[in-house]
Amino acid sequence: MRKLIAAAALIGAATAAFAQGAVAPAPNGIAMPEGYKDWRVIGVSARTDNNTLRIIIGNDLAVEAARAGQTNPWPEGTIIGKLVFPQRADPNWAAANVPDGFRHAEFMIKDTTAYASTGGWGYARWLGPEQTPFGADANFAQECFACHVPVASRDYVFTTPAVLP
Amino acid sequence: MRKLIAAAALIGAATAAFAQGAVAPAPNGIAMPEGYKDWRVIGVSARTDNNTLRIIIGNDLAVEAARAGQTNPWPEGTIIGKLVFPQRADPNWAAANVPDGFRHAEFMIKDTTAYASTGGWGYARWLGPEQTPFGADANFAQECFACHVPVASRDYVFTTPAVLP
Repeated sequence: MRKLIAAAALIGAATAAFAQGAVAPAPNGIAMPEGYKDWRVIGVSARTDNNTLRIIIGNDLAVEAARAGQTNPWPEGTIIGKLVFPQRADPNWAAANVPDGFRHAEFMIKDTTAYASTGGWGYARWLGPEQTPFGADANFAQECFACHVPVASRDYVFTTPAVLP
Repeated sequence: MRKLIAAAALIGAATAAFAQGAVAPAPNGIAMPEGYKDWRVIGVSARTDNNTLRIIIGNDLAVEAARAGQTNPWPEGTIIGKLVFPQRADPNWAAANVPDGFRHAEFMIKDTTAYASTGGWGYARWLGPEQTPFGADANFAQECFACHVPVASRDYVFTTPAVLP
């Protein structure tokens, strides 16, 4: 009986860890954007340097801007999200790579004033299904920013929105 | 002036061709699902045999079934869509493949009765930004079905929904 109760407690803890409300904020204070799982798609990419598949999603502002081609700069309030998956060969289609678990979700939040020190974008990332905040302290965002500097002329965004008829 | 009017008429025709309401149905009578661009994501894949990236989306029934793990069988009324993109190396990140235009959108519609001859799924595909229906006649769906028969034990669906915390 004690084992059962312990098991139930563990299950409860695991559920809580996965509930979005319980996710700890990033070290720079950015909270996980609510409801991102229900956001619409902006793009897709496959990285051959680290064998990951990426779905790029956005909040309503981002999606409307992407469809209107108004992405340089993206409007204030834009949030762009990347859902990143390790890949494996599809067991049913060997020449296709498909997700193999979940690596992380990461976000760029456009607020020119609040995030002036990182090009007008706030950065945040949560690792794994446990959604552990990435970064030891608030300076972690400088690492994100440094990687995005080469695309400063694209408002620091790598993603080109996919064409959807 | 006549040239200007002709140009305006052409632009008008092009706009109409891209408007979802004007898309011709598939040869088996299936109409393009409305509003699919706003559907939520179920998965992603990258095919190395034809160098395409794919975003897999679904209607509300499909997304709820995917999140609940109730996908064998998928519920009646499920619509699964695939947005298929030719790929190119990202000009700003050589080791990433990103969409290069738009190849086609294709759909599977679950209706066990209506589509009994193709495993309970209706198939339809529209090609390119022009959204030209795929298939010479209604029998085209047998070609789709034949390719899906190897995954009959998965309710004829290749996609395994991606894990999203």
